[in-house]
Amino acid sequence: MTNATTVKLQSGASMPLTGLGLWKVPRDVAADQVYAALKAGYRLLDGAADYANEKECGAGVARAIQEGVVTREELFIVSKLWNTNHAAKHVEPACRKSLADWGLEYFDLYLIHMPIPLAYVDPAVREHPGWTTTGDDSGEIRTERSPIHLTWGAMEACHAQGLAKNIGVSNFCSALIVDLMCYANVHPQVLQIEMHPYFVQQGMIDVCKAYDIHIMAYSSFGPASWVELDHPATKTLPSLLSLDTITQIADAHDATPAQVLLRWATQRGITVIPKSSNPARLKENLDNTSLMLSEEEIRTISGLDKKFRIAGGGDPRINIWA
Amino acid sequence: MTNATTVKLQSGASMPLTGLGLWKVPRDVAADQVYAALKAGYRLLDGAADYANEKECGAGVARAIQEGVVTREELFIVSKLWNTNHAAKHVEPACRKSLADWGLEYFDLYLIHMPIPLAYVDPAVREHPGWTTTGDDSGEIRTERSPIHLTWGAMEACHAQGLAKNIGVSNFCSALIVDLMCYANVHPQVLQIEMHPYFVQQGMIDVCKAYDIHIMAYSSFGPASWVELDHPATKTLPSLLSLDTITQIADAHDATPAQVLLRWATQRGITVIPKSSNPARLKENLDNTSLMLSEEEIRTISGLDKKFRIAGGGDPRINIWA
Repeated sequence: MTNATTVKLQSGASMPLTGLGLWKVPRDVAADQVYAALKAGYRLLDGAADYANEKECGAGVARAIQEGVVTREELFIVSKLWNTNHAAKHVEPACRKSLADWGLEYFDLYLIHMPIPLAYVDPAVREHPGWTTTGDDSGEIRTERSPIHLTWGAMEACHAQGLAKNIGVSNFCSALIVDLMCYANVHPQVLQIEMHPYFVQQGMIDVCKAYDIHIMAYSSFGPASWVELDHPATKTLPSLLSLDTITQIADAHDATPAQVLLRWATQRGITVIPKSSNPARLKENLDNTSLMLSEEEIRTISGLDKKFRIAGGGDPRINIWA
Repeated sequence: MTNATTVKLQSGASMPLTGLGLWKVPRDVAADQVYAALKAGYRLLDGAADYANEKECGAGVARAIQEGVVTREELFIVSKLWNTNHAAKHVEPACRKSLADWGLEYFDLYLIHMPIPLAYVDPAVREHPGWTTTGDDSGEIRTERSPIHLTWGAMEACHAQGLAKNIGVSNFCSALIVDLMCYANVHPQVLQIEMHPYFVQQGMIDVCKAYDIHIMAYSSFGPASWVELDHPATKTLPSLLSLDTITQIADAHDATPAQVLLRWATQRGITVIPKSSNPARLKENLDNTSLMLSEEEIRTISGLDKKFRIAGGGDPRINIWA
């Protein structure tokens, strides 16, 4: 492993190993945070329709481009198809809606956010329905019968039209990947999944390697990535950021625990997408690739594995990780 | 829960809660074991093309019917489509081949054995290819691009022709079930999966309940079900059959540990398919439904959960449980 900061996808595209995650970035600060990240050197932005901040993120990008901080070509912008738009006929409109919100002509990568088809909600009724698909506040989850192979076919059509330079999936398990590889005519370039030292998933890494699918890890800090959601795991699991194993390795390298957690992934060729509203931390996170962990340190960190997935659960009709 | 010995499927068919598993039953004793089981009162037989003993099992059935032990209508016979026959055009011939081997006109249930498409092997070249799909002894695994939705469509065609009264799947994860429910035109009646107190899978039970899919548990005895394969789990995990928790509950009911392990499933409406070459044990296993465990005993047994799956692993291209 070198200290490369980018990785080459199967398509030939170059993708940064470190990006800015836009999940949970509040709308009122999203433009500024994106702009600050681009100023700090970030080139990968990981967005999604469901994050409900694509217009603001786009405004941050526009400002940076206008000021000559970056060019569009230097950026790698990701968006994701939300669950309510899985019906084949809704995929392109959803992609175009996200592009319009960002103010872009194409995404570098467009992902199926989850293998969960929820009932369609007209954006005019509710722009960001999340899990509430009834158009009211009942909180009831309604599903629809949109199989993934048809959704994927519509993703391929977006790719063919140039709306997405690369397409991929998120939150797919290995059996869904094995199936996807049987019907995909356009190679799925990326799988985005939860991954941290409590959830190492070496088997999944091997599957993706066998199929030349690049992994983007979310929740690289483990429970700490779920604090805003007050997830039970934030109480039951010790924070990775203050764990002796991590802080000792960080100290040995004069690095931060966050950098160690990120480097544990990037040094093995996995893209990470931390977020931070703190300018110094933003810079530190991006700089994780200047750190070089030893093989043994990586093994030690992997030894923290608890096979513990934080995401998931809920309504059994859509429990994709039961 | 009552002490019913059968369960009604979504299709209306009646299916026994206890059956005879035919995996690993050697060809030279299969006919006698099947015959003995039918004499002992078994009515459900869980076979598969891959078990390479369907002709012999069929001979045991034929003898029992000829001698008036049972009628065909009283039996519930299961077979499974092997991985090398996932291409739509191979499904019906594979089903008909298994029917011919059994000497039957229909299966009560026909399952996709695994969500793994291996390269086709002509039965004339190698009748039971298993994982060796090259037609020689190289041991190399070759896959083919047969997506599950097309295999399922061909399963539905078998059902439409009356070759299989019910169809279902085996070794599917919950995300594959969620997807299957989006494209299935014929309801998948059954999911057969590994299930024992070290691998409780309450989430999966909830998913199947939400979709009215009946669960058949294999490896009900946990590691002990894998002794013939010399699986590492048989060394690393304590045997469930001699575990204090199980033997104490067995003693309290004047039952065998095997009966307790089976009843832990059947009392919650899950079908089990133990096998035994010992006539007394065969009878004991079938009689598990006469036992009534308390709610607390069931909870205690479920408390042994280690989320430990014994099946799986191997080549990353087909690692469906990575």
